[in-house]
Amino acid sequence: MQTDRRKEMETLEILHMNKGAGETSYAMNSSVQNKIISAAKPATKKAIVQILCSSLPEKMGIADLGCSSGPNALRVISEIVDDVYSTSRLLDRPMPELVVYLNDLYTNDFNNIFGSLPSFYRKQKQEKGSGFGSCFISAVPGTFYGRLFPSNSLHFVHSSSSLHWLSQVPGGLEDGCGRALNKGKIYISKSSPECVLDAYSEQFKSDFSVFLASRSQEMVSGGRMVLSLIGRESMDPTTGHSCYQWELLARSLMTMVSEGLVEEEKVDSFDAPYYAPCLEEVKSEIQKEGSFMVDGHEAYEIDWDGGMEMEGDASPLSRGERVARTIRAVVESMFEWHFGCHIMDELFRRYAEIVEEHLSKTRTRYINLVISLIKPS
Amino acid sequence: MQTDRRKEMETLEILHMNKGAGETSYAMNSSVQNKIISAAKPATKKAIVQILCSSLPEKMGIADLGCSSGPNALRVISEIVDDVYSTSRLLDRPMPELVVYLNDLYTNDFNNIFGSLPSFYRKQKQEKGSGFGSCFISAVPGTFYGRLFPSNSLHFVHSSSSLHWLSQVPGGLEDGCGRALNKGKIYISKSSPECVLDAYSEQFKSDFSVFLASRSQEMVSGGRMVLSLIGRESMDPTTGHSCYQWELLARSLMTMVSEGLVEEEKVDSFDAPYYAPCLEEVKSEIQKEGSFMVDGHEAYEIDWDGGMEMEGDASPLSRGERVARTIRAVVESMFEWHFGCHIMDELFRRYAEIVEEHLSKTRTRYINLVISLIKPS
Repeated sequence: MQTDRRKEMETLEILHMNKGAGETSYAMNSSVQNKIISAAKPATKKAIVQILCSSLPEKMGIADLGCSSGPNALRVISEIVDDVYSTSRLLDRPMPELVVYLNDLYTNDFNNIFGSLPSFYRKQKQEKGSGFGSCFISAVPGTFYGRLFPSNSLHFVHSSSSLHWLSQVPGGLEDGCGRALNKGKIYISKSSPECVLDAYSEQFKSDFSVFLASRSQEMVSGGRMVLSLIGRESMDPTTGHSCYQWELLARSLMTMVSEGLVEEEKVDSFDAPYYAPCLEEVKSEIQKEGSFMVDGHEAYEIDWDGGMEMEGDASPLSRGERVARTIRAVVESMFEWHFGCHIMDELFRRYAEIVEEHLSKTRTRYINLVISLIKPS
Repeated sequence: MQTDRRKEMETLEILHMNKGAGETSYAMNSSVQNKIISAAKPATKKAIVQILCSSLPEKMGIADLGCSSGPNALRVISEIVDDVYSTSRLLDRPMPELVVYLNDLYTNDFNNIFGSLPSFYRKQKQEKGSGFGSCFISAVPGTFYGRLFPSNSLHFVHSSSSLHWLSQVPGGLEDGCGRALNKGKIYISKSSPECVLDAYSEQFKSDFSVFLASRSQEMVSGGRMVLSLIGRESMDPTTGHSCYQWELLARSLMTMVSEGLVEEEKVDSFDAPYYAPCLEEVKSEIQKEGSFMVDGHEAYEIDWDGGMEMEGDASPLSRGERVARTIRAVVESMFEWHFGCHIMDELFRRYAEIVEEHLSKTRTRYINLVISLIKPS
C-alpha cells in the first residue's frame, strides 16, 4: 500500500500536458483531443436537454474532469453553457445559475485558463445579452480517482480524453513480472506476458470503480455524465492496434538504445499509467459498481493526427511530425522524468519518422469510446 | 462608463503580487500581510464558533477573498479549517463538509497555491485522522467587486489586506483635476486638491458598496464575514501617516526625475488604485448598503516591516530594505507597467534608503482595521 501510495503521488506529479503556448505545447497540439470533444457533442447536448426537461434546478453544477489547459479547456465549458442557454430558451425558462468546476491534476496550468476567463465572460455577455444568467467558473485541482466535490452538488459531469490515464502504474508489475517484461511494459501487445495484461486491466477496473463511486456521491439524483476515452475494439487486448502509438514510441527508443544514446535498462523499467479498455470492460464495471445506468454508448475511429490533413491548406509538417507533436505534448513530462530532457528532441524526431513510415503502409487510428450515464432518481 | 470599464480591466490586469519564490517575490516578502492575518485570528475564531453554534450546516461554504499566493494563501484556510474542526469537536458534532473557495484576480499565481495542496491535504489527514471530514478547495478567479459565487452558498467570508485596493483609479480625476494634480496623485496628502480626496473616497464607497451587495447575495442568513484592511485613524485623510509609504515612493521617483532617469510627466500621470479608509467611512457604508450588521471592529498599528526585527536572529537587511522589499512585492507589477521594468532595481534601492532615513526619525506604522459582520437571519 505504501508503495502504491508513493506510485500514485508520483503519477500525479509527472503526468501533465506540456505547458505554455510554444511549438511543443499542448495548447498548440491538441487537435486530436479537440476532434474527440466534437464527437461527444451530441451526447452532451442530449444530456443537458434531458436534465433541464426533467428538473428545474435553480443552480446547476457542471464539472469538466481532466479539463487540461489551452483552447480545449474553455471550449467544452463554452459549448455546455450554450446548450444550457438555448435549451432554457426553448423551454421558456430562466437559465439556472451555472456553477462550473474545471478539474485536472495539481500540476495542470490553471493560470493559462484563468488568463482567458475575462474574455470568455465578456463574449458570453455580448452574445447572450441580458438573457445570460450567472455563470461562476472555478478550478478544482486533484485526481478524479477520489472525491473532488461536495455531496449532491453536480448535475452534469463531462470528461474527455482522460479516463484512459490510470491513477498509477499497476502495483503488481514488480512482483513476478519484473524486469523480464522488457519492452512489453511500455505498451500492451502480443508480447506482453499475461500478468501484465491482467495487472493493467485490474488497475483500470479499480480506478474506474473509484471514479464512479466518487461521482455518485457528488451527483444529484437524475444527474448525467458523458465520458469519452480512448478504448479498443475487442475484448482481447492483444488484437488490433489499440496501443500502437506506444509500440512505435518503444521502437523509437530501441533505435536509440542500439546506438548507445539511451540505456536499455531505462527502457525496460519504463511503465506508462495508460490503459485503453474495451466497451465491455467499461460497461461491466458500471454495472458492478451499481450507481449509474448506461443511457447510450458508441465507439468510433479517429485519425492519429486528428484528421488535420482534411482541413484547409496543406500543413507544412508531415503526418508523422504532426502525430509526434500531438503525442509529445501529452507524454513528454513523463518521458522527461524517466529518461531526462536531453533526449526528447531526438526521440520525437525518430518517432515522427517511424510514424510516417507506418502510416504510409497502414491507416492505424484511435478507437474512441463515448458513454452516457444517468444516476437514477 | 466606457472609460471606467477600460480602467477597471486595466487594473485587473496590472495589479498582482510578484510571482514565484525569488528575492523580490511576494511569497518571500509577505511578513506584513502575515502579521495582519494573525491579528484577525480572534475575530475569525469567534465568527466560526458562532456560525457552528447557531446552525448545523451539512456543507459549510468558506471564501478567502484576495488570497494571493505564497505561504499566506493556505495559512488562512488552514487556520479556518482548524477552527471548524476544534469547534465541531467541542460541540460533539460531526464536522460539516467544507467547501473552500480561494479568490484573487485572474493574474494571481494560482498554480503556485495548487502545488502546495497535496501536502496541505496530507497534513490535515495526518493531524486530524478520521475525525477530519471532507474539505474541497477550489479557486475562483475574478474581482470581488462583483458576483463571484452562487447564491446562498457562503457561511463565512474572510478578506485580508485586499479591500484597500480599489477596482480602478477614480474616473473623475481626468476632469478638472487633471495633470495639475502633479505628485499628489500618487498618494493622498495635504498637498492633494480636494477633488482628488473626494474622488478617491467616492471610489472606495462605491466599490465597497458593490462588494457588500455581492456578498449579501452569496451568503446564507446568519453568515459572517471578517474583513481586514489598511485604514487610517481619523476622518481627515490629510492627517496622520496613512499613505506615507506612497509619499516616500513618490519622493524616490522624484530623485530619479531630478537626475533625468525618469520623465516627470510619467510621475505626474501615475495613479494608484489605493485608498485607506477610516473606520467611520467603512461603518457608514455598511449601514447605508444595509445587508450586514457590524458585530465588532478594532484598529491597531503594525510596523512597516511587520515587526521582523523582533524575531530571532538579526536580519542581514536594514529595516528600510525590508520595507522596500515588502512594498515592491506588492506594487512592482503596477510600477513596471507604468514606468518600465528597467528602473525597478534603482527605484527600490533609493526607496530603501529614504525609508531607512525616515524610520530612524519617526516610527510611522500602518493602521489596520478589522471589522466583523453578520448577515442577519
